Amino acid sequence: MSRNRQGTLMSVRPDVRVLDCTLRDGGLVNNFAFSDEFVRDLYLANIKAGVDYMEFGYKASAEMFDPSKFGKWKFCNEKDIRNIVGDNKTDLKISVMADVGRTDFKKDILPRKDSVIDMIRVATYINAIPSAIEILEDAKKKGYETTVNIMAVSKVNNDDLEEGLELLAQTSVDVIYLVDSFGVFYPEQIERLCDKYLNVAAKYDKKIGIHAHNNQQLAFANTIEALSRGVSFLDATVSGMGRGAGNCFMELLLNFLKNPRYNKIAIMNFIEKHMLKMKEEEVWGYDIPYLLTGSLNSHPSSAIEFMKQKRTDYAVFYQELIDHVL
Amino acid sequence: MSRNRQGTLMSVRPDVRVLDCTLRDGGLVNNFAFSDEFVRDLYLANIKAGVDYMEFGYKASAEMFDPSKFGKWKFCNEKDIRNIVGDNKTDLKISVMADVGRTDFKKDILPRKDSVIDMIRVATYINAIPSAIEILEDAKKKGYETTVNIMAVSKVNNDDLEEGLELLAQTSVDVIYLVDSFGVFYPEQIERLCDKYLNVAAKYDKKIGIHAHNNQQLAFANTIEALSRGVSFLDATVSGMGRGAGNCFMELLLNFLKNPRYNKIAIMNFIEKHMLKMKEEEVWGYDIPYLLTGSLNSHPSSAIEFMKQKRTDYAVFYQELIDHVL
Repeated sequence: MSRNRQGTLMSVRPDVRVLDCTLRDGGLVNNFAFSDEFVRDLYLANIKAGVDYMEFGYKASAEMFDPSKFGKWKFCNEKDIRNIVGDNKTDLKISVMADVGRTDFKKDILPRKDSVIDMIRVATYINAIPSAIEILEDAKKKGYETTVNIMAVSKVNNDDLEEGLELLAQTSVDVIYLVDSFGVFYPEQIERLCDKYLNVAAKYDKKIGIHAHNNQQLAFANTIEALSRGVSFLDATVSGMGRGAGNCFMELLLNFLKNPRYNKIAIMNFIEKHMLKMKEEEVWGYDIPYLLTGSLNSHPSSAIEFMKQKRTDYAVFYQELIDHVL
Repeated sequence: MSRNRQGTLMSVRPDVRVLDCTLRDGGLVNNFAFSDEFVRDLYLANIKAGVDYMEFGYKASAEMFDPSKFGKWKFCNEKDIRNIVGDNKTDLKISVMADVGRTDFKKDILPRKDSVIDMIRVATYINAIPSAIEILEDAKKKGYETTVNIMAVSKVNNDDLEEGLELLAQTSVDVIYLVDSFGVFYPEQIERLCDKYLNVAAKYDKKIGIHAHNNQQLAFANTIEALSRGVSFLDATVSGMGRGAGNCFMELLLNFLKNPRYNKIAIMNFIEKHMLKMKEEEVWGYDIPYLLTGSLNSHPSSAIEFMKQKRTDYAVFYQELIDHVL
């Protein structure tokens, strides 16, 4: 079923929720080594900006990953979050992400009454949906809002996707995310995918979210395209900080949204104080190698390596990709 | 009349023409001070890449503008173009832009038989259309292909735009361009504007073109949205080089187009040789001040000045804009 646009460019959509995942996707850029000052200022900026959710990082297993080798936001221990937010007596909700197969969710995700976390987001590949459901139901039973983020959907065949969506929609999950992990989709494709997700959501009273990557300078365009179809949970990061080509820019998204609750200037002040320096130290954002991996529907890791090595031989890289990817 | 999408993401649209305006819009960044080697290599890259038109710059009046104060591509003298292209025995066509009120077109635009130029593009504001028509008819009589580029259309009221389009469509002009000078439009607006332009074009057998700016990281998204509505002339620049936030990236556009005549690698090799260095020396491309001017439907000049002064006080700048623009 094809759907119509929801709302107009001028109207407020009360169902919209903006989620800042700067620490989580940006943490993949700097190994989660954010200073406490950075995190606290981002928290305060998000409150001022009217952002709805702030994701602090991953709930990674400390048995699988050595905590001495990562910043603390890969683990998001309760005491570390509380050190920033206290009891978080604000309108800004807090989320963390749990990767299927990389989290000791039973132990590390506390009952909600003992935590300042509001929402658990479960990231899964299509073939791990049963494991994702186990985490989702555990989190829901503990009292959390939940989302499931099906990654790398550009690699998934249509039958599997439809079956996966149905399976997930029949769980207690609140939000199902369309994730363009490789930055491969054009707005026309986002439109069709959103309609597919939204049609399932409508049957089971679920919300749909979007998480875009900027490999082809389309993260913002795809996010507002999804929004206009009826998607309501919108991921963004400050200055687009995120793995590889990065994400939808928070400042662009808040500028676009017409709800007076959102205040882009609070984010711009944070950028002035922290992100200009961060941008000098770390590498992310649109560049040719990400365009090439994105358009070949390929993981950005080879492009990230290309950038780290300060290579510029794009034609050679393209051949390497074609030889190894297609 | 609302229109349907033309073609699909997989299909070749034989009506599409790609125009490289790196020297012309990029010349507004570096005062047209391109080395001959840069221009020659760009010419060769465009030929290899299958680009359809290469714009060399402006046909500015040497009486109004002091040639000692600008690079030669502000004037595009016949001998300077021939110094690069010889007789241009290639499939790449050559265009120049004439700004209404800033060109001695009667004298400086030679009869086509005496020139290697193939197309004259006339840039006009809505209130100067009669003057634009004078230049267009002169150029057509001399034997050229012609386009008219109505600038700053985001400031034009709907009645004036419809009347202007009708007036222009009744001339001998070949292509009418939708120009988002300030980078203000979202894809939904581009869609509606394209439909308006295309409906007029259909009556008079004209083509429509698009020239986008990247203030909100939407130049590429808006260009392919326009393409999908039926727009056929597509402006782009290498690495998006152009005034302020710059333009639609040529490498993104060629990667998107499915016609095997286009070869993005030729452009990437040019980027490796010339644009990486250019990017270190000159400033253009998406940044917060351009987002602010764009979203306020304001000329980018104040944002360009902000960047030149290396200011980062975005909040103050935003207040200045609101005080002076709205």
